[in-house]
Amino acid sequence: MTKFDIKTPSGFPEFTPAQERMRHHWIAVIQRVFEQYGFGPVTTPLVEREENLLGKGGNPKEMYVLKRLHDEAGDTSHSGNALRFDHTVPLALYVARHRNEIAFPFKRYSIGPVFRGERAQKGRFRQFDQCDIDIVGMESLDIKNDALVVAVMVQIFEQLNIGDFIIRINNRKLLIGFFEELLGITDAEEVKAIMDVFDDLEKTKKTDITKRLVALGLKEDDIGKIYGFLEGGDFAALAEGCEENSLFLQGWNELSTVFISLKQMGVNPKRYKHDFSIVRGLDYYTGSVYETNLVNYPELGSICSGGRYEDLASVFTQKNMPGVGISIGLTRLLWQLFDAEILKPVEMSSASYMIIPMDDSEETVAHAYTVARVLREKGAGVDLYLEDGKMKKKFAYAEKLKIPNVVVIGEDEVKENCFVVKEMETGEQKVVKL
Amino acid sequence: MTKFDIKTPSGFPEFTPAQERMRHHWIAVIQRVFEQYGFGPVTTPLVEREENLLGKGGNPKEMYVLKRLHDEAGDTSHSGNALRFDHTVPLALYVARHRNEIAFPFKRYSIGPVFRGERAQKGRFRQFDQCDIDIVGMESLDIKNDALVVAVMVQIFEQLNIGDFIIRINNRKLLIGFFEELLGITDAEEVKAIMDVFDDLEKTKKTDITKRLVALGLKEDDIGKIYGFLEGGDFAALAEGCEENSLFLQGWNELSTVFISLKQMGVNPKRYKHDFSIVRGLDYYTGSVYETNLVNYPELGSICSGGRYEDLASVFTQKNMPGVGISIGLTRLLWQLFDAEILKPVEMSSASYMIIPMDDSEETVAHAYTVARVLREKGAGVDLYLEDGKMKKKFAYAEKLKIPNVVVIGEDEVKENCFVVKEMETGEQKVVKL
Repeated sequence: MTKFDIKTPSGFPEFTPAQERMRHHWIAVIQRVFEQYGFGPVTTPLVEREENLLGKGGNPKEMYVLKRLHDEAGDTSHSGNALRFDHTVPLALYVARHRNEIAFPFKRYSIGPVFRGERAQKGRFRQFDQCDIDIVGMESLDIKNDALVVAVMVQIFEQLNIGDFIIRINNRKLLIGFFEELLGITDAEEVKAIMDVFDDLEKTKKTDITKRLVALGLKEDDIGKIYGFLEGGDFAALAEGCEENSLFLQGWNELSTVFISLKQMGVNPKRYKHDFSIVRGLDYYTGSVYETNLVNYPELGSICSGGRYEDLASVFTQKNMPGVGISIGLTRLLWQLFDAEILKPVEMSSASYMIIPMDDSEETVAHAYTVARVLREKGAGVDLYLEDGKMKKKFAYAEKLKIPNVVVIGEDEVKENCFVVKEMETGEQKVVKL
Repeated sequence: MTKFDIKTPSGFPEFTPAQERMRHHWIAVIQRVFEQYGFGPVTTPLVEREENLLGKGGNPKEMYVLKRLHDEAGDTSHSGNALRFDHTVPLALYVARHRNEIAFPFKRYSIGPVFRGERAQKGRFRQFDQCDIDIVGMESLDIKNDALVVAVMVQIFEQLNIGDFIIRINNRKLLIGFFEELLGITDAEEVKAIMDVFDDLEKTKKTDITKRLVALGLKEDDIGKIYGFLEGGDFAALAEGCEENSLFLQGWNELSTVFISLKQMGVNPKRYKHDFSIVRGLDYYTGSVYETNLVNYPELGSICSGGRYEDLASVFTQKNMPGVGISIGLTRLLWQLFDAEILKPVEMSSASYMIIPMDDSEETVAHAYTVARVLREKGAGVDLYLEDGKMKKKFAYAEKLKIPNVVVIGEDEVKENCFVVKEMETGEQKVVKL
């Protein structure tokens, strides 16, 4: 037996060939829609300077730094670098590095792995793919862009055919304004502390949330009002107390613009809704916030989230760059869908034709090559079985890969200069003349 | 000024938006051809167990291991992991891990980054993309597969339109047999030492090569014969002394099969040739070896290399798995082509249409959304300029991105329910009714 432990390291998942094919199909769909909406690819290095990652929100407890296994004396050129933990900090660095080569508003997508040294547990990974789009403005960015990124994601999830989903939209200015008005809190830190508690509402018992809010100094009466608000209480009644609050009004105008734009864009109104309870814990969101759920599988949590931020890159450049972005947690989502058997991938090959020469004679094999070439020139994916052996073994290969059409090449096909396509599901055969 | 050094770390390159678009196009072509030939995607983690990488050829001096920046006391679950340095060791682990889910011969491709902690220098990177295909057999693998991987690469480079290229093919059995016969050396280590010297022939002065060979104990006379051989001397004269050598004959038969197969496959004969001087230093190649050059840019070195190996994974599994693979060094190749201005990317957007609303009125913007939707439904990439501002600024955006068609939406278009496409290169305009 081998002395090696061949498993992947804990928290670093990989997929089977069939799962990988599905992942690949998903990425193709995601990428195609991103590009149809004018987003271009950006691939930053997986490794950035440690201080740049830490300077913009990196959690030192989860950050992986690189060391060379055997470092030569005095060679420090490999030190101080770490693996990226998201696509946003690299985006901030990218726009700072390439400001003059970029046309703003900059619409970019990034699809690829990020790394977080979390405790490994079921469905939580240390390397996982994120699919991000962002629109970054120079000095300003129209709020209509906050609708555009939602339209993109609706398009993607509809094309991926994963059943009912809904993107829930809120606005943090609206929320902060409300808290200010209702509780008289104007200190941003205090508001943030309260919002962080509410961000846990979906995964925590209400009694625990209440306890934490009381600990922050809130009255039970006010807490009741907030629950009413977050659970979608009557908006008119709510707005009554807030209409003088400028932050509340600004948030309301932004949210209205997003909803009007989505309607004008022709986005299916079943796919999005306003939800007061969406808070999004991350500090840098300042306006629109999004979360997405599968209606029939709420237990999966949010599969696609994001929001508007006022300040992408001020730590790296003096320019003011607001932006809006949204991201699909691809690895986590696929892993969950496979694990819950919501998706059951079976297809293993990109080929729609499997060509099997019956014997090893020069004429048969040459004819098989010709047939493969002709089919590929028509754009089809073609696999060719070149091993010696029994026909049974050759068919077993096509069967295992679930290739839908099999073409067996023998003496007859060579003589007639033709080939016979057998559709495996129906058993139907069709003769094609060359 | 910012206190951060925002440059990418040394040896970790990134491309401009226009270069990135070209890279993206290349990957799409490479991937499409791989799939057309029945190769399926495999994405292994970027991180593997350190001992597994070291157990199969990993160079500890170039290996990056991961450490957490702040490790919690007693948490060792993050230790002992390192970044992959190629796609071959992960492939060996993948087939060992997923043996039962795989149909053999296993045709897989991997496109993605690998990491080597080399000294950073111009055109040498510490992170770079490799595009690999391999065909892995279970217990055996027909030699015709050694032609198939060449056919795939010819197809790719023809589609990429990078001018004349040639894949040079040799066989290590043929070479070893020749050395045995000519020099009477049967010790594999000695033969290898000599072949390693010849592997440097293209990048080293001949006098230095001669010195090293003399140091290995070779006679000047024999060295002369070898030069004659490697430089494509008369094969008949050469083979005369070797025809009894079983390794030489086996190599000759394999090479013949590869060339007959390439001809039968209809591969353009200008794209490949036999070259006795191709050695390939890597230990694990045992038969066919390949290197590829751009005919007009020999100074770029080999842009695509590979070969046949008898033993992919014996350190990880008891099964015997021979294979054949070939790989494009994508980052290095693109970087060189950009640097030498052989490729000059200008296109920056995936969009073929840019839609510009003339004003911010609800009707104009709504009409712009409708036009965008109609064009996207036809499959086009459409960018939409949503910022307020002067027309000049809006056109400058389309101009900078080099989007070929611009559609301006104003009152007239709304009234007539139409749009006007302006082709930027010719200035031609076309009215389209909705």
